[in-house]
Amino acid sequence: MDSPQDSDTSQALTHPLAESQRIPRRALLKGVAALAALGSVNVSGVIGATDAGDKAVAKTEKLDLKKGAVIVFQGDSITDAGRKKNDGMAWTDSGALGNGYPAMAAGQLLADYPDRELQVINRGVSGNKVPDLAARWQADAIDLKPTILSILVGINDLWHTIAFGSKYKGTVADYETGYRDLLQQTRDKVPGVELVVCEPFTLRDWPAFDPYRAVARKLADEMKLTFVPLQQVFSDAAKTAPNPFWLWDGIHPTPAGHALLLQAWRRVVGV
Amino acid sequence: MDSPQDSDTSQALTHPLAESQRIPRRALLKGVAALAALGSVNVSGVIGATDAGDKAVAKTEKLDLKKGAVIVFQGDSITDAGRKKNDGMAWTDSGALGNGYPAMAAGQLLADYPDRELQVINRGVSGNKVPDLAARWQADAIDLKPTILSILVGINDLWHTIAFGSKYKGTVADYETGYRDLLQQTRDKVPGVELVVCEPFTLRDWPAFDPYRAVARKLADEMKLTFVPLQQVFSDAAKTAPNPFWLWDGIHPTPAGHALLLQAWRRVVGV
Repeated sequence: MDSPQDSDTSQALTHPLAESQRIPRRALLKGVAALAALGSVNVSGVIGATDAGDKAVAKTEKLDLKKGAVIVFQGDSITDAGRKKNDGMAWTDSGALGNGYPAMAAGQLLADYPDRELQVINRGVSGNKVPDLAARWQADAIDLKPTILSILVGINDLWHTIAFGSKYKGTVADYETGYRDLLQQTRDKVPGVELVVCEPFTLRDWPAFDPYRAVARKLADEMKLTFVPLQQVFSDAAKTAPNPFWLWDGIHPTPAGHALLLQAWRRVVGV
Repeated sequence: MDSPQDSDTSQALTHPLAESQRIPRRALLKGVAALAALGSVNVSGVIGATDAGDKAVAKTEKLDLKKGAVIVFQGDSITDAGRKKNDGMAWTDSGALGNGYPAMAAGQLLADYPDRELQVINRGVSGNKVPDLAARWQADAIDLKPTILSILVGINDLWHTIAFGSKYKGTVADYETGYRDLLQQTRDKVPGVELVVCEPFTLRDWPAFDPYRAVARKLADEMKLTFVPLQQVFSDAAKTAPNPFWLWDGIHPTPAGHALLLQAWRRVVGV
């Protein structure tokens, strides 16, 4: 069905869980800009990385999703995946979840737990580094009172020191300090939150990125958080199909890559 | 990562399977228009329909997906789901698959069968009726030489006789004649094609739609095609969560509804 003369969805969207569901036109257009931005990284040096002895292991106990549980996905363009930047819970609105693993997670988790009144929220923003997350952490993480907060960040913390005239001067030490602070303040301000650290990954030949991956793992170990070892997941997948089948530019997942990422995430998180 | 100064993805998208992957800006904007159109149906009379004795049964044999299999999804806005209207195979491009069950199917099937070089294509168009499919059937179905062609159409064949000044005068008999012709010409022109007839569905109290659902089933039985009985899937789901949790306006699936639809589709089709 369609009705081109009326593109305002706000009347049609009603749900006990929903906040403002109004989607301004500019949000739609911002969504398109973000979508377009996703495709803008040059393909270069796409070869298989490997990271032996690093497996995604299923949790022994299934995570109990309580009624009204809030699941928040945070990160950069891989998480953003072209989402419309409205502030609604967006559970009725595929567009606000983007085209990536958070949208796939929302569909699957809501369908698998229809009685739990889950809220699945995507707050990824294309181009974000740890300092960018820090600047919006109160509003886009703490204030959402997440039951599960999943974070995937790191590629831009290195990339922006190389690209865009290398204006960003952050080091791997800055990444560690800033990331630890995000995790610590979330744990302090959201009692009982389940923090999930997703390992940043690439299928480019990019040794300079290894220390960033190591920091993500170190922080998860240090703070005893759930860690999703995604580098090995994609390195293993690269043996079954060409790298661009999974990460079209060596960094951004294809639909298959997003589905693979979510499979690993659900297995490790235990939902 | 992002790079707002360059929104042309064409250089970045390369794959042996791909046709033209160029995505013109106007295609992005058409995508947004379709996305906006999705939200434009009034919510009214949303109550549970039931259709006893109608279960989605798994195929006894798994469908063998051969290397290079082409899976095409055809239909209206439920299938379209805001896809960008580019002509690429779009396997690298979530946007061109939309936000609905075809995009979820692409991610899952490509990830589950990475060695098969599958092509998953969404050709749903918002607002389409059987005559609209007929007008573009050669280009958007036959010429794609589908291995599996899944069709979900019918709601607009009734809706457009009621809405938009009731300009459309097609009857349920026209729906049957036109739909049979689509199926017959596909079978004649694409030898060995696996045709999948998805039952159109609603959670509105809309008895006038029952004959359309009955026709879809009748044609599948008559031509011995795979039939996905979606009305019962959604009627059963409506016992576990409010109707708008699954179909936000009684017709268009939420992310949970799309995930549920795909679960039923995969179970019945056997992939």
